[in-house]
Amino acid sequence: MTSTDVPTPTSAMTKAVLDEADLPTHWYNLAADLPAPMPPHLHPGTGEPLAAGDMAPLFPAALIEQEMTGERFVPIPEPVREVYRLWRPSPLYRAHRLERALGTPARIYYKYEGVSPVGSHKPNTAVAQAYYNAAEGVRRLTTETGAGQWGSALSFASALFGLECEVWQVRASYDSKPYRRMLMETFGGVVHASPSELTAAGRGFLERFPGTTGSLGMAVSEAVESAAPDPEARYALGSVLNHVLLHQTVIGEEALRQLEVFGETAVDVVFGCAGGGSNLAGLSFPFLREKLAGRTDTRVVAVEPAACPSLTQGRYEYDHGDVAGLTPLMKMHTLGRDFVPEAIHAGGLRYHGMAPMVSHGVDLGLITARAVEQREAFDAGLLFARTEGLVPAPESCHAVAGAVAEARRRADTGEAGVLVVGLSGNGQLDLPAYAEHLTGARTPATGDQPF
Amino acid sequence: MTSTDVPTPTSAMTKAVLDEADLPTHWYNLAADLPAPMPPHLHPGTGEPLAAGDMAPLFPAALIEQEMTGERFVPIPEPVREVYRLWRPSPLYRAHRLERALGTPARIYYKYEGVSPVGSHKPNTAVAQAYYNAAEGVRRLTTETGAGQWGSALSFASALFGLECEVWQVRASYDSKPYRRMLMETFGGVVHASPSELTAAGRGFLERFPGTTGSLGMAVSEAVESAAPDPEARYALGSVLNHVLLHQTVIGEEALRQLEVFGETAVDVVFGCAGGGSNLAGLSFPFLREKLAGRTDTRVVAVEPAACPSLTQGRYEYDHGDVAGLTPLMKMHTLGRDFVPEAIHAGGLRYHGMAPMVSHGVDLGLITARAVEQREAFDAGLLFARTEGLVPAPESCHAVAGAVAEARRRADTGEAGVLVVGLSGNGQLDLPAYAEHLTGARTPATGDQPF
Repeated sequence: MTSTDVPTPTSAMTKAVLDEADLPTHWYNLAADLPAPMPPHLHPGTGEPLAAGDMAPLFPAALIEQEMTGERFVPIPEPVREVYRLWRPSPLYRAHRLERALGTPARIYYKYEGVSPVGSHKPNTAVAQAYYNAAEGVRRLTTETGAGQWGSALSFASALFGLECEVWQVRASYDSKPYRRMLMETFGGVVHASPSELTAAGRGFLERFPGTTGSLGMAVSEAVESAAPDPEARYALGSVLNHVLLHQTVIGEEALRQLEVFGETAVDVVFGCAGGGSNLAGLSFPFLREKLAGRTDTRVVAVEPAACPSLTQGRYEYDHGDVAGLTPLMKMHTLGRDFVPEAIHAGGLRYHGMAPMVSHGVDLGLITARAVEQREAFDAGLLFARTEGLVPAPESCHAVAGAVAEARRRADTGEAGVLVVGLSGNGQLDLPAYAEHLTGARTPATGDQPF
Repeated sequence: MTSTDVPTPTSAMTKAVLDEADLPTHWYNLAADLPAPMPPHLHPGTGEPLAAGDMAPLFPAALIEQEMTGERFVPIPEPVREVYRLWRPSPLYRAHRLERALGTPARIYYKYEGVSPVGSHKPNTAVAQAYYNAAEGVRRLTTETGAGQWGSALSFASALFGLECEVWQVRASYDSKPYRRMLMETFGGVVHASPSELTAAGRGFLERFPGTTGSLGMAVSEAVESAAPDPEARYALGSVLNHVLLHQTVIGEEALRQLEVFGETAVDVVFGCAGGGSNLAGLSFPFLREKLAGRTDTRVVAVEPAACPSLTQGRYEYDHGDVAGLTPLMKMHTLGRDFVPEAIHAGGLRYHGMAPMVSHGVDLGLITARAVEQREAFDAGLLFARTEGLVPAPESCHAVAGAVAEARRRADTGEAGVLVVGLSGNGQLDLPAYAEHLTGARTPATGDQPF
């Protein structure tokens, strides 16, 4: 290298960081603007539309109301905003170096949720859920987790609102991926390997499947069984449901304002990875509001793993959210609740179904979907790490891959324009996945589970 | 919990995030303002003051000049500032929840360097060093690393400036702590377990100490041997030297401005953890400038581990920076270069010596030192994680412990005032240390090594 090879400085802005006074005051509810109403959730026993009371043993009243609301904007309580300020507004970056590496005329931006205390977008809803539960007198939250992204987010949020947090973690992950378990415990969470001896469901699974390393469906059953009969306990879910998607819309609201700071008024494509759907929804729904109002013509692309292609290969029909069939029936794109995806590294994307509101958006033509192979995702993630300096979570690599492919296409056609990528989390605790990709080894990540 | 127990919202600001236009334009050199001149480094062979040419085989001319400069402010090159913008200015937080938990009238602020791509302050100098090397035509950087904080920072910086980066990592860490090695490799760094067969020094160590798991001193010898005879290679060091401390002063420059945003004009005490000294220096030297100019009366407290108490128990004398005695002689607080600290988790603080400029500051009475036990440090870190939501690196826990003790004292006396804590990194890749603290187990972390 000679001295002339040193990258030329640019005076262009790298990131837009809003002042915390600019933190959104409301969550946005896409249901209010959809051209066709959302198909209702159905009672698993009667097949009739679900009533608020049906969910009362599991969720606090405020969250049930949000699950069913038709209001366009829902105010964010001040104690939730106070916690959000620990890492929000999160930065929106212009990917100058990635653009140069791709030789693309497109302008690429990424919204980075990895600055949260647990390194992903999950706390956006965990904090809200912990707050509403605490405000209604709940003392204990239960949940399930696979790799531990969701469990660590809820443990963090519970610590701040004085709640106990009890997490059933799929045994395969509990044993093989200890870092996120340690993170949950550092925040005071109590973590059980599932199936456990602590619940009737768990004991039943252990008897029926001796030596099982568990599954997310089993862990759901245990967490639900632990919470339902206890008046001081409630259950919490980290994706899929309407109220979870609602809480994530702070991502997109901030991104819209930050793009204005960059002087961008027209976004061509928004790319988000899609597992349960909450990250994609959080980023894209505010962009869809602008599109539905006729102010923009933004396309939204859901990028899912080829190994778990619910949007590109699944059927749009009523299905249960869990393997055991205990949850309400929800109309969604599903591979069937018995579908067991390959053990890819993007554990957060290994879900048989898709958030009903995302599915509805796909059905209405507001969102398109693309499936990418794991190798393509990690190739994009590596390129991103070596140009932008941030190591994307394996889930986020899918969104990056979608944008990289589009940016390359535009390098060929000369088409400029604006691409926005949802970088939902960082990969600091997923480094073995990168190491495996680099060495080309093919050790199945059997412990990976969604959420 | 009843609904009245839910934390009361405050309208007070949580963090100050400067716009990237406010990124410092200059590094600050404390040497220019010290009331007595710095004792010079000495040639290890002749014992005479070191000349610039003596360092030329190891460092580029620009860094040698910075090592010896008396200029008060050194301009930050625009390509370095461009990379800094990926995470800088880093946020300064008001620790509202920690203050409430301690019941202290003191106002506690923390400057958080964990937002960098590798999660610590190390890239502040790695980026500068990579830039100057690339600008002078160097193609390959070599360095040593223990736990991997420094090696991953230099790998990241090298990736962005098109340099090869070759890291000799102490074998004990290489084998037992794979995550930071994977991070180095994700950025394209080449990592060797040290001692290696690749150098004469390494082969000699393997012959003399069969089965050794290495030491930082051995790894230094290998990295230096690899770079010195190669005209296209240079060696890089992550702490101790004057130019490294210089690069870290962006931390304190930003903190001073951010405290103004909070309306604070008088800081009582600045707490930083001290290993090699670069993090402490980076935060505190700009505060010392203000003190030496008579504008403030801030105290600076270096918090070191009781297991490696160079400032509180060492002697202030000339010593080598490495175990083998290959480096120049530097006047510093030292436990003796043969001192082997206990295997504490704060690997970044396990160094026998202390940066000469920090040592000089202690000698002049500008900096005071305190040693804390590992248990006290992790107790403080856990309290911090469960109140502020961020998990501090084990090194940073020492600074937190210093501030917590002072804040508790002020809870007793009723004394208010302002405490500033250097949160030099996050503990995402150090979670096993927290797990061990929580369980009370005492598995020596034999792999930990400074840098």
